[in-house]
Amino acid sequence: MTDTVVSSATKEVVIGFERPFVIIGERINPTGRKILAAEMAAGDFSRVEADARAQVEAGAHMLDVNAGIPLADEPAILAKAIQLVQSITDVPLSIDSSIVAALEAGLAVYKGKALVNSVTGEEERLEQVLPLVKKYGAAVIAISNDETGISEDPDVRFTVAKKIVERAMDHGIPASDVVVDPLVMPIGAINQAGRQVLHLVSRLRNELKVNTSCGASNISFGLPNRHGINAAFLTMAIGAGMTSAILNPLHVEVLAAVMGADVMMGHDPNCARWIRRFREPPPPGAATGEAPRGRREGGLRRRPA
Amino acid sequence: MTDTVVSSATKEVVIGFERPFVIIGERINPTGRKILAAEMAAGDFSRVEADARAQVEAGAHMLDVNAGIPLADEPAILAKAIQLVQSITDVPLSIDSSIVAALEAGLAVYKGKALVNSVTGEEERLEQVLPLVKKYGAAVIAISNDETGISEDPDVRFTVAKKIVERAMDHGIPASDVVVDPLVMPIGAINQAGRQVLHLVSRLRNELKVNTSCGASNISFGLPNRHGINAAFLTMAIGAGMTSAILNPLHVEVLAAVMGADVMMGHDPNCARWIRRFREPPPPGAATGEAPRGRREGGLRRRPA
Repeated sequence: MTDTVVSSATKEVVIGFERPFVIIGERINPTGRKILAAEMAAGDFSRVEADARAQVEAGAHMLDVNAGIPLADEPAILAKAIQLVQSITDVPLSIDSSIVAALEAGLAVYKGKALVNSVTGEEERLEQVLPLVKKYGAAVIAISNDETGISEDPDVRFTVAKKIVERAMDHGIPASDVVVDPLVMPIGAINQAGRQVLHLVSRLRNELKVNTSCGASNISFGLPNRHGINAAFLTMAIGAGMTSAILNPLHVEVLAAVMGADVMMGHDPNCARWIRRFREPPPPGAATGEAPRGRREGGLRRRPA
Repeated sequence: MTDTVVSSATKEVVIGFERPFVIIGERINPTGRKILAAEMAAGDFSRVEADARAQVEAGAHMLDVNAGIPLADEPAILAKAIQLVQSITDVPLSIDSSIVAALEAGLAVYKGKALVNSVTGEEERLEQVLPLVKKYGAAVIAISNDETGISEDPDVRFTVAKKIVERAMDHGIPASDVVVDPLVMPIGAINQAGRQVLHLVSRLRNELKVNTSCGASNISFGLPNRHGINAAFLTMAIGAGMTSAILNPLHVEVLAAVMGADVMMGHDPNCARWIRRFREPPPPGAATGEAPRGRREGGLRRRPA
């Protein structure tokens, strides 16, 4: 039973083994979004604001905020984006940058206990990022690669994750404040990527006893019907013990997969959240050919005496 | 590694641990389908024919055939339905009845090695059904309940399943020809039903080393967005080791869940089946607002140096 508590100024979110899966909205990220990148670089945060509201409305429990724009002043932009998002939503944030100065600028303005995204197992990163995490009392995402790159062997990645957790403890950061990203590889390229990552998630939970997160949509890179693959991956990952992920909650198939997995795990008491989200009647004029099927499914298939 | 081989006159299907999940189409079943029941009772099998073709077209590897119509001559109707379905499709069939005489009538006309659906752990059923299974060289679905009903304790259900497998072996039926149904209970009524059945599936696979099947849609009884719950359940059940299920392949969310789970398990080499099924371009006039999102997702989120 490991709980990772993060917070905004007014709200706590707990990522934990026996809790509903935590959805971290991925949209506030200019990578591959040219318009957003140009706007953020020019000081226009209207789209950031809209993305923040829409994701929280759709069901995000936290938001990832990234300002990685080539040639721009990333620390300043990231800090500004964080202040803006914190002024309009109350969900805790994941401060996302590969630049240490940007992480620090974000942490300096952040209200609450942030999730720093991320540190790797590379020596230089460990010694730059972990002191910041400690200084600001944050939690941190630990990515299971190091100087040698990303191993295809999940047991090597486990060893890297273990090293990061131990190093965090050396810096006075409890293991419960380290959320490990097992690294999701594209299954279209690596056929065993699904099994590898599920095996690793299970080891991270049962042996290292840490919470886990990932960039879920990497799994479907290059494939058609990406939402379908993302949904299958997330459902299975939750079954294997994953406790949070960075994803787009506006994709309803993906959201339904996560919420359905919570139901399966017994983390949605009386299915209350599922019923609240999906009980809406169909819109007027919807196909009526469903009625016989509805009746067909109205009963239990088998009711042995 | 357990393989259960079933067949039609010309085609084999293998239910197995390291194989793609086997979809058994559920539609040919008059339970709760009044029109179908009336037609079948009157000797009109046109809807049975249409249901058979549509399910195979949609991706069913086998078809369940049930003729349970109150006050009708079930053995005769079941035999006729089986002959008809075998005349128009080449997939193996599951012969589904709670009446032993109907199972025998179906087996007598069946061409190939059928899957008998089903035997329970009740003494009388065991001694009536297992000799038939042996006589016709069939495989059989074993439902893990007995005279005492369905236990909520998955370990009790495991014990019942084990008894059925042992009894089958006493009758000369190999354990590999027994496919255990762990019994899926409605999660809207029993909040732990998901965990219970996943735990049982895992024990059945790892300890009893048998293949498994179930009536998947029972899980979502009484809930809204049933396909979403069925999809989450099937994905997780496949992750836990389930190897087949009786379901409706015409529901695309459910089909995508099963196919996506096969991708995750490494049972769809090079994602070839997934790509074949989902690569179709969107229809003309489909929303075009997806383009920026598509580009956003075109790259991997993280590519650590």
